[in-house]
Formats: sequence, structure tokens, C-alpha cells
Amino acid sequence: MRTEILAIGTEILLGQIVDTNSVHIAQELSDNGIYLYGTSTVGDNLNRIVESMRYSLSKCDALIVTGGLGPTQDDITRQAASIVMGVELEQDPQLVNIIEGFFKARNRQMPANNLLQALVPKGASYIEQRQGTAPGLICGIGNKVMYCLPGVPHEMKEMLSRAVIPDLLLRDGEKWAVKYSNIMTWGMSESAIAAKLSEEFDRLERMQLENELNTPSIAFLANLTTGVKVRISVSGQNTPELDIALNNEVSKISEILGDCVFSTTGESIEDVVKNTFISRNLTLSVVESLTGGLIGSRLVGVPGTSFYFKGSLVAYQSEIKHSVLKIKSESVVSALAVNEMAKAGLSLFDSDVCLAISGVAGPDSQEGKEPGTVYIGLYCHGDKLSTVNVEPVELKLFGTRDSIRQIAATSALDLLRKRVGLI
Amino acid sequence: MRTEILAIGTEILLGQIVDTNSVHIAQELSDNGIYLYGTSTVGDNLNRIVESMRYSLSKCDALIVTGGLGPTQDDITRQAASIVMGVELEQDPQLVNIIEGFFKARNRQMPANNLLQALVPKGASYIEQRQGTAPGLICGIGNKVMYCLPGVPHEMKEMLSRAVIPDLLLRDGEKWAVKYSNIMTWGMSESAIAAKLSEEFDRLERMQLENELNTPSIAFLANLTTGVKVRISVSGQNTPELDIALNNEVSKISEILGDCVFSTTGESIEDVVKNTFISRNLTLSVVESLTGGLIGSRLVGVPGTSFYFKGSLVAYQSEIKHSVLKIKSESVVSALAVNEMAKAGLSLFDSDVCLAISGVAGPDSQEGKEPGTVYIGLYCHGDKLSTVNVEPVELKLFGTRDSIRQIAATSALDLLRKRVGLI
Repeated sequence: MRTEILAIGTEILLGQIVDTNSVHIAQELSDNGIYLYGTSTVGDNLNRIVESMRYSLSKCDALIVTGGLGPTQDDITRQAASIVMGVELEQDPQLVNIIEGFFKARNRQMPANNLLQALVPKGASYIEQRQGTAPGLICGIGNKVMYCLPGVPHEMKEMLSRAVIPDLLLRDGEKWAVKYSNIMTWGMSESAIAAKLSEEFDRLERMQLENELNTPSIAFLANLTTGVKVRISVSGQNTPELDIALNNEVSKISEILGDCVFSTTGESIEDVVKNTFISRNLTLSVVESLTGGLIGSRLVGVPGTSFYFKGSLVAYQSEIKHSVLKIKSESVVSALAVNEMAKAGLSLFDSDVCLAISGVAGPDSQEGKEPGTVYIGLYCHGDKLSTVNVEPVELKLFGTRDSIRQIAATSALDLLRKRVGLI
Repeated sequence: MRTEILAIGTEILLGQIVDTNSVHIAQELSDNGIYLYGTSTVGDNLNRIVESMRYSLSKCDALIVTGGLGPTQDDITRQAASIVMGVELEQDPQLVNIIEGFFKARNRQMPANNLLQALVPKGASYIEQRQGTAPGLICGIGNKVMYCLPGVPHEMKEMLSRAVIPDLLLRDGEKWAVKYSNIMTWGMSESAIAAKLSEEFDRLERMQLENELNTPSIAFLANLTTGVKVRISVSGQNTPELDIALNNEVSKISEILGDCVFSTTGESIEDVVKNTFISRNLTLSVVESLTGGLIGSRLVGVPGTSFYFKGSLVAYQSEIKHSVLKIKSESVVSALAVNEMAKAGLSLFDSDVCLAISGVAGPDSQEGKEPGTVYIGLYCHGDKLSTVNVEPVELKLFGTRDSIRQIAATSALDLLRKRVGLI
């Protein structure tokens, strides 16, 4: 089964937004073992959209289109789809009810043009929208299929995983399965990980050449905020042996990579920190400076954070570190400072553990320290916490203001899961 | 002059890397008034690359190709270009010298396969590489042109601005330009904005039909975190009239949309808040609850925040609101609570203005209040601040835990720029 992706939107063509939708869809297709043949982008122009849909469909069995389903005059994907199908657009009474209900539930007047979103090409079916008002479309064209999804990323993602991927797998029909696990790491570069795994790479290549069944493959996905994800996948007949082959490989790779692995099941580092604290019945507070609240914000992204995370103080201006936290160190970007900040946070929030971070995000230097200089401190009280080393950590990071803050935040969370995990 | 972009690489198709190259090229073309017709992506497969090059060239005058110029077996853009041109590949002696020189200058042995990079389709010229070893190509095909650039972003960018854009402008000859402005809004849905602009849409459509020069066009881009962006663009002869047409339309649309517009020049709301505070010489502190630090984190994303932002307290657990902030209200999700939180924050941080936010992010209800219930309070002291209304605002938001937090944060920043903007 060959698929293609078509992204619609002049703002993508103008480079004003990055088409993350196509990237996400490509990943999902790859993870589900569905073959992607090509992607393309076209502006908000009816003739060109129709032309692009036809050309993509000529090359593939299933086309996934994103964008152009909104309620405004420049949203013309529905019209284009009806032209490609060679049918009229009809107003679907059920969709009218759903869209009117959406506004009623919010006590809002429905702008009349929202009813444009109730139009469906004759013979197509719709994908219910669960987050906004634009429904998706499933358009049969001969023995091929075209899915039209909204361009708003969270709406698109939800429809893709709920309706499109299952439908594609159903149409695909083969009993072929692709299974995978994501090994999550922090603190090693992609090339360092690749070097550590080179023998294993060679071994898997030999297996592949000998056509051994259920041979795992390894792929990397590096991300500034979440670290390097090592994806292990196996494809083959959907049998228990396939799962065994996957699990064995995951154990092997994790053992080789060691301490930089924080999850073998794709969990985020925020999840791992939460589980570490909750399973030990400990509470956490944070004192932030250069990250401005990013660490707290990332922690509370996971439901259930209130069971262990008491709160944080963002002491952004240097003055606040002295006036509110009463730190004595004159330097506010130093090992001494984060040590004092962590101690002060522990008593302010009355928590079992306090994490403190201070540094220079840039673009300017501070106290003669270069952008990227970051200190992380950790302070705990109580007997059972004596295993936690409270020596502050100094980092030298590179990159933009934003990437320094992101890497600093993840490094702090990683320190937390490592040290508190020892208790 | 119509251009197209073709990105080559299986790792892009698998979603393993984001194709930032096409985004960059699109921006450069737009900034230089060169018309981009479409973009596409294809994997490392000779037949499909040739097919994609031919199809793109059939639609445009100039094709910019990225990727596949490296020294390894899967780099086949040179072969594909020679097939599309209908000529042989030849080794260019000057290129051999340059590539050998690159390794000699670094005292490194040249791997033999690097000489693949000295191959040029007969009749094509090359673009000298100044950062690595892969030269670019300029391939004439009839009266059309195809540029092949390396996929490594900094190498691609350097060649694009040094060789490709100037060559395109020279070929273009016309002094055609596209100019645009982004009007940034918060608090109105895309469809409500479209409804408000429907008369203006009709007027512009009539102008278009009558082929009036410099007719602006309007496009929308909705985003959960940043609001609805209304892009006004005009294309035409690059004359002062073009700028006047753009500026007039921006003023007109801003006036129609009114208070929901926070910038007519594409600034982020964080920038607008910063400028509002700095120009009034005021300082800010924040007390957050459900957002967990997100507001502070977004504020410090802009350089220069330390001139006005003192810090924030994240009082995540209800207990902290009582123990640290000493609020008396039993309910922590209420107008009364955010009022007390803002007052307490003002005195804790000794700031001119304090913003406080509390609410239910979900998935569970709290104090019998549904997820999405959010209160925002604002407190100020001093005479000149009496213009700021300190009545708390109640919001009812919908969506996931993450989208509720994002919308709540932007709503709080929007309240800040509106109220403090009155001072």
C-alpha cells in the first residue's frame, strides 16, 4: 500500500509556518509499517489543489491531505475534493447538528460561515471532529482513498490516530505487523550512541543479509528537548516470536547504553520523574532562574503532578534571589548560589527535595560568565535522603537562548531522576 | 517566474528529520519576491527522483533541489540530474583539485569516494562549495533551470544566498514583489474574524475581478497558543504604491478587528507585554497555579525580560497558596483566591504589577469546578496604576489539559497588555 501526503496552505509555501503535520504523519505511517511514497505542498488555489490531488493519487493508493477545512473563504479543500471525486457538495444534516451543538455547549453564537464545514462531497463520509468544528473527510476515488484532515495540529493528530491509521491498516489487510519500542536517552549525542552500538549494528546487518526472521532494526531521532530516541523495530508475521525478538533487542541495547537510558517504553522524562517521586512518597519543590518557570511547566504537563510537586519559585531578577530567598552568595550564577537556592526552596515549600537552577541564557554574558553556563543544585533532608549527593553540577551548553533553556531544564530533570532514583 | 522546491532524502519521508531546508528556501524566495508554486519530497530512489524532477519542471521555470549530493552510495542527485538533462556525467578537473585541496588543508586522507563529488552533468556548471566538499549544480534544461544544493543546512543556505537567489533575480528580470504584514489577534475565533471581515473580503474580491493593481489578499492562520494571525499580502510591481496599498489595508483591517489586535507587525504577545512594561517603566511579578510556570517561561523567551520581570511563584499544591502566600480564601479556584494571590505576589516580589492565575487543567474536576475553569487576577499599587481595573476575570476553556494551560497563559498575557496598556 503506497501513501502520499499533501499539505495545503500558502503560509507553508511562504515559509511562514513549518509544516510539522507532514512530519508527524510520516512518523506515524513509518511506525505502523505503512509505506510513504512522497509528500508535497500547494498554496490555497483551487486549480492547483485539484491538480496536486490528482497527481498524488496517480502515484499512490491512499492520499492524506491536511489543511483548508476551516470555515473561511480561503478554505477550499472540500471543493477540491468534490471536483476530484466528480460529485457535488451536499450539506450533511448530522454535521449541521454537531456544529450547532458545539457552539450551543459553549453558549456562543454560531457565525453562519461555520456551516460551510457541514458540506461533504456526495458519496464521501466524514470523520467526526472532537476538538474543534472542522470534520475530516474520507473520499473514495475508484479503488483509491483520499483523507482530508484539518491543518490545526492537535485536531489533525487526533483524527489521524483515531480514524485514518486504523482505516489504512484495515485496507492494507496484510497480516504483516511492525512492532517497536522507543528507548529514551539523555546526555549522549546521536553520534556517540551510534559509535557505542556499532558492533550491534554490524551483527544486525549480518542477520539481515542471511535473511533471518524477525531481525530488529535501529533508528535514531535526536531532539534538543527530549534527547536521542533510539527506536527498535521488528517487522514480520504477527506471532509471539515477533514480540520476543523486540524485547530481547530492547534489553540488549539498554544494557549497552547504560545510565543515559531513562525509559525503554517511550515515557517522557517528566513521567519518569513523577513515578520516581510518587513511588518513594517524596515531595518536590523547584527554584528556577534562567529557565523562568519552564521546569515547573514541563512537570505539570503530566496529570497527577499535584501528588508530589508542591510548587516553584522563579527568582528571575538577581535581587529576588537575595530579597525573597535570602541567599548570601554575591554571585547568583555559581555552585554556591544554587546550593543556597535549593536549601531556601526546601524550607519555603517544606518539601523533601528541592531542585535549583541558575545560569546565563544569553545573548549577553553575566558576571563574566558566557551564555550556556548553568549550575544545578539539589538539596534534601531526612535520613533516607542521605544517599543523594547534593554537590551542584556545572554545565557548559551551546546554542540559542531558547535551546540553552530547554537543554538546561531537561538536564535538571535528568539529574533529579538519577539522584532521587538512588533512594 | 515560477519556482518549485524538491527535497530528496528517505529520512525526511520517514519523518526522522524535519525538512527545515524547504522552509528556509520558501522564506528566502518570498522575501525576494520570487513566486513559489509548490514543494515536494522524495526518497533516495533514482527513478522516483527523476520522475519528481520532471514533474516539478513541467510546472515551473526554476527548480531548487536539496540533498543527495554527498559522497556515499545513496547520494544519487547528480545521476538523476544527468538523466533529466539527457547527458553524461563527467569528472571536472577543477573540482578534483578543489576537493583534494580541502582534505590536504586539513591534513586528512581523502576517502576515494569523495571524487564522486567532482562529477558534473555535461553542460551544467557547478556552484563552488565553501563549507564542505559537495559542490552545487546549475543545470540548464531547455529554457528552464534546475539548481542542486547539498542537504546540509548551513552549506545549502550559503549557496542559496550567494549563487541561487542572485541567479534567479537575474533570470527573472521582472521587478515583481510580494509584500506582507501579519496582524496578530487574541480572543476571537477564526470564523468570527472571517465574519467580521466578510464585507472587506467581498470588496477585495471585486477589485480582483476588475484586475485592479496592488489588490491585497487576506489569509488566516489559527494557532492555539498564539491566536489567529491575519496575513495581509500584496503582489505587484515593486513600487512605493505597493507598500502604500499594504499599509492602508493593514490599518483598515486592524480598525475593523479592534481590541483583539495586539500587533500589526507580527510581534508575539510576549514582545508586546515586554514593550508595554518597559516603555512605562513598570515591573511585573506572576503567581501561577495550573500553568505551573508556563507564563514566566514564555515571558523569559524574549531577551531583555530581566528589565521588567522580577519573578514568579508557582503555588501548585493548594497548601502552598495558604502556607507561602497566606491567602485566606478556602477555595483556591475562585475570583477571591486570584485576587489574594495577586496581592500577596505584589508584596512578595515588590513589583508594580502582579498577575495571578488559578484554575482546573483537568482531567479531574476540583472544588466541584469543571476542567477549563480559570480565574485571572491583576493587582497594582501606585497612583498611576489606578486606571487598571483589578476585577478578576473568569474563563471557561475547552480542550485537553495542555491546551487549557496554553490558552489560559495567553489569555493572561493578553489581559496584561490590555490593562497595563491603559496606563
